[in-house]
Amino acid sequence: MTEVFDLIIIGAGPAGLTAAIYAQRAKLRTLVIEKEFISGGQMLNTWEVDNYPGLPGISGMDLGERFRQHADALGAAFVKDTVQEICEVPIAEPELLRAAELSMGGNRPMIKEIHGRKKTYQARTVIIASGAAHKKLGVPGEEKFAGAGVSYCATCDGAFYRGKVTAVVGGGDVAVEDAIYLSRMCERVYLIHRRDELRAAALLQEKVLSQDNITVIWDTIVEEILGIDAAEELSLKNKKTGETKKLSVDGVFIAVGIEPNSGAFEGFLEMDHGYICAGETGETSVPGVFAAGDIRTKPMRQIITAAADGANAVAGAERYLMES
Amino acid sequence: MTEVFDLIIIGAGPAGLTAAIYAQRAKLRTLVIEKEFISGGQMLNTWEVDNYPGLPGISGMDLGERFRQHADALGAAFVKDTVQEICEVPIAEPELLRAAELSMGGNRPMIKEIHGRKKTYQARTVIIASGAAHKKLGVPGEEKFAGAGVSYCATCDGAFYRGKVTAVVGGGDVAVEDAIYLSRMCERVYLIHRRDELRAAALLQEKVLSQDNITVIWDTIVEEILGIDAAEELSLKNKKTGETKKLSVDGVFIAVGIEPNSGAFEGFLEMDHGYICAGETGETSVPGVFAAGDIRTKPMRQIITAAADGANAVAGAERYLMES
Repeated sequence: MTEVFDLIIIGAGPAGLTAAIYAQRAKLRTLVIEKEFISGGQMLNTWEVDNYPGLPGISGMDLGERFRQHADALGAAFVKDTVQEICEVPIAEPELLRAAELSMGGNRPMIKEIHGRKKTYQARTVIIASGAAHKKLGVPGEEKFAGAGVSYCATCDGAFYRGKVTAVVGGGDVAVEDAIYLSRMCERVYLIHRRDELRAAALLQEKVLSQDNITVIWDTIVEEILGIDAAEELSLKNKKTGETKKLSVDGVFIAVGIEPNSGAFEGFLEMDHGYICAGETGETSVPGVFAAGDIRTKPMRQIITAAADGANAVAGAERYLMES
Repeated sequence: MTEVFDLIIIGAGPAGLTAAIYAQRAKLRTLVIEKEFISGGQMLNTWEVDNYPGLPGISGMDLGERFRQHADALGAAFVKDTVQEICEVPIAEPELLRAAELSMGGNRPMIKEIHGRKKTYQARTVIIASGAAHKKLGVPGEEKFAGAGVSYCATCDGAFYRGKVTAVVGGGDVAVEDAIYLSRMCERVYLIHRRDELRAAALLQEKVLSQDNITVIWDTIVEEILGIDAAEELSLKNKKTGETKKLSVDGVFIAVGIEPNSGAFEGFLEMDHGYICAGETGETSVPGVFAAGDIRTKPMRQIITAAADGANAVAGAERYLMES
């Protein structure tokens, strides 16, 4: 018989791991389902996290590990699986069923069933903290040379380009951070941005613009990534002048944003542009299901706000469990 | 002439310090006004913080110091003062005024003026992160023996009671944490709670109930604190039986909740039971004024959620500055 958990947490980034920490402290029977081999979510792609209060300048990898160790120390249970679907099913466990029927006057209560690639899981509450992933440029050559000169993670792959020439595509915080990071090891870094100003924080902009070996190429898009066995050249087009040119690079880092990992939940709950509709408490359109972190509609996607979401969602799950 | 800051942050607990970190990274001209000699807010009253992700088991004092050092490392400016009032005044700085008049078609724009006990400060945006403070029991002897056997901070004063008998009044997380903390140094700890069950997290309840030298006194209120030069005895009354009795103690720790430090803002913005009305973005009823942390209406008051508020409020302030 399938064990019915009090809470299943989907995802092990800052939101999921914080939820695990709070759930363990609340003594909920909890399981964390994570699809990756390493916990931390998008933190792992960040070379230096300088805005998680109390741990200035920590690497994303280290911060992810600290979150995970914190959850481990409290005894959180993890399983590696990929969630494919959630639905609601009538409760099956006889003991729980009897208790629930008594309290609900005979109405057969529903629990949440999570279909993973490996196994099916059941829980009374679910926190979806599946986060978001890197957006693709969607140009020829991108897929072909992925892992062969095309990367989405400067932190992971930057070290391969010591003394080489690289390009970063994008204009937000991550793109600018990536360019600064790469400038420490690369001979030259081109930052290719489709607009005439960066979206990144002022401090980061100042840093990137003052770095001798970073050249910003404004108003420009990448039309194609060219090469034989690996990426060697970018086809660029200036959006204002229409001018095209080739740029020789040893590697290109694509940092054009994120998209929510919400495919498995389509049709199950209310969404907005792929983000799960949920406010600060994490409550979704399905009672007992909560959304935390980058996956939900929210004003600001940061490690600290994802972590707060994890705490709030557990409080919501506790309230739901007490009331149901 | 008074300097007009981009942002003034009132308070230096987790919300205010996180706001300072984010504001420095955003290169806003920022000033933090704090009323205490030590940064950290209510964290300072917590012996062990075990739910700030990534730093399990850290002391509240250390966590406060880490937050402050993080803000210091980014160059945040602090001033010690007590805010007494905020109001809006027409902008006075000629240069800013000219620029603003041009962009607003001649309407004289307003800025925020903060009246401190020592000085008056001006800013284009304000984040109120003034937090909350310990509630009083409001019984005879409480005020008389404050600092002489009556304490609101086990972390601060517990060490004075090594080998002694103490009582903690309350039933929430803090009361239970205080009892556990004191049990490590005191001969015996009484936990006096007016209800027949604790409100604290399950894990904490389990801990406190399994501790040999902690005795929980249920359904009971403290009616008076008695003594000559210091607290020596508590008058207790059982709410169910009406029975009264005396309990000899060397010290009593009062942990019956918090109240918002919002007196200075009454009449200036919308409030609810002393909390400033503000959602996740921190926006209050006054444009350009944001509330972050325990001071605002919110579902869950934790260090991690206060810190997230600080980040969100700076994002709000940045949006306001860009648009005004």
